[in-house]
Amino acid sequence: MNILLPYRLLLSPDKKLFRSLRNLLGFYPRNISVYKLAFSHRSANPETVNGQQMSNERLEFLGDAILGAVIADLLFRRFPFRDEGFLTEMRSRIVSREHLKTLALKIGIDEYIKINSAPGMFRSMYGDAFEALIGAIYIDKGYKKAQQFIVDRIIKLHADLNEIEELELNFKSKIINWAQKEKKSLVFEMLEEEMSGKLIKVRLMIDDKEVSRGEDFVKKKAEQIAAEKAYKSLGLGNL
Amino acid sequence: MNILLPYRLLLSPDKKLFRSLRNLLGFYPRNISVYKLAFSHRSANPETVNGQQMSNERLEFLGDAILGAVIADLLFRRFPFRDEGFLTEMRSRIVSREHLKTLALKIGIDEYIKINSAPGMFRSMYGDAFEALIGAIYIDKGYKKAQQFIVDRIIKLHADLNEIEELELNFKSKIINWAQKEKKSLVFEMLEEEMSGKLIKVRLMIDDKEVSRGEDFVKKKAEQIAAEKAYKSLGLGNL
Repeated sequence: MNILLPYRLLLSPDKKLFRSLRNLLGFYPRNISVYKLAFSHRSANPETVNGQQMSNERLEFLGDAILGAVIADLLFRRFPFRDEGFLTEMRSRIVSREHLKTLALKIGIDEYIKINSAPGMFRSMYGDAFEALIGAIYIDKGYKKAQQFIVDRIIKLHADLNEIEELELNFKSKIINWAQKEKKSLVFEMLEEEMSGKLIKVRLMIDDKEVSRGEDFVKKKAEQIAAEKAYKSLGLGNL
Repeated sequence: MNILLPYRLLLSPDKKLFRSLRNLLGFYPRNISVYKLAFSHRSANPETVNGQQMSNERLEFLGDAILGAVIADLLFRRFPFRDEGFLTEMRSRIVSREHLKTLALKIGIDEYIKINSAPGMFRSMYGDAFEALIGAIYIDKGYKKAQQFIVDRIIKLHADLNEIEELELNFKSKIINWAQKEKKSLVFEMLEEEMSGKLIKVRLMIDDKEVSRGEDFVKKKAEQIAAEKAYKSLGLGNL
């Protein structure tokens, strides 16, 4: 992909990095140094300035917070009828270390990262750099641009919210499937009356024996919790 | 304080609320219903829409994330030479349940909250409503306005960052003061050479006996940890 560089960058020693970031971000960076910092793993910068290492950890702290806000906004609007328990769970899945690493590698972040140590040493390195990159965009261009990058270039292209949502239903549906296959009876019993604003308690009965309990303000969630417990206590991990 | 209402609000049944929010926020809300929702505690709304309670908990989820981002930004810029451990600790103090409640009551949020139950029942209610209010501003007016409200109307007026920072130094300085008063010798010994990027281990010696240890990537933090442990193990809680 050949992109015309703005005049001001024609003589920049970072011409190549500018161009490559343009491809990644969808816009030309203003302040290139903050992106360089974002890709600097702490193992790559033994020097300190005022006793502080020049690594991407501060940017990671910032980017993590910006990412959290953008994903909260996205979920809030995308799921207008779901409660905050669902939103919290969805967000924690989207921003989990493992998922961030997947996203980071999908956008090829490994090619930007400077490290002096063996890559295997730092398992969370890619996710960290990804968050630091978001921090860099925020510092360079503000909230809106960071939000656009996350939503349009990351989530829409590389994350399947429906698939992530499906994970939530797994325990309940998995255990129901299992019970059907094994010809066992399975019932979620409500232990306390459903009243709004009240904690709901359910218990999961398999072949008329209590296997687990769950509680939450939302019935579905309470059932999920009970299902997950049963799933684990029955050792169904390989379903 | 008498404020001229915009024409469009002259006939609004919510004229009083508009005016009062103008005082609180520094601007007139566009969408008043989202603020009403922000002040609706779950105990006040037994009705559900599509199986979901119309309470402020979703807005609280959103506001919590926006607040986290704004405070991260504020700390990132205010403390350019402090590491992410410090920034994380500072933020968690600023957004702690207890501190949020203090801030919420300082801006008089209790006068807005609708509850049907006894107020004492919900300890985190004020902090929750405060976060929901931030979520409402974000939905109504966007990130910039929410940021301005938090920084200019809350932090600058009601939170003393220096004082919050001082809390961090408490354990080390408290135990040093105590040792001086008790005429005990007190030394923080470095157990491993200080190398950048390496975990630093210190031990706290009082009268030549090891009392506690601490480790962190930052020496000052490692000392704090050791001091805090000693402080507790020596039962100095009432210093």
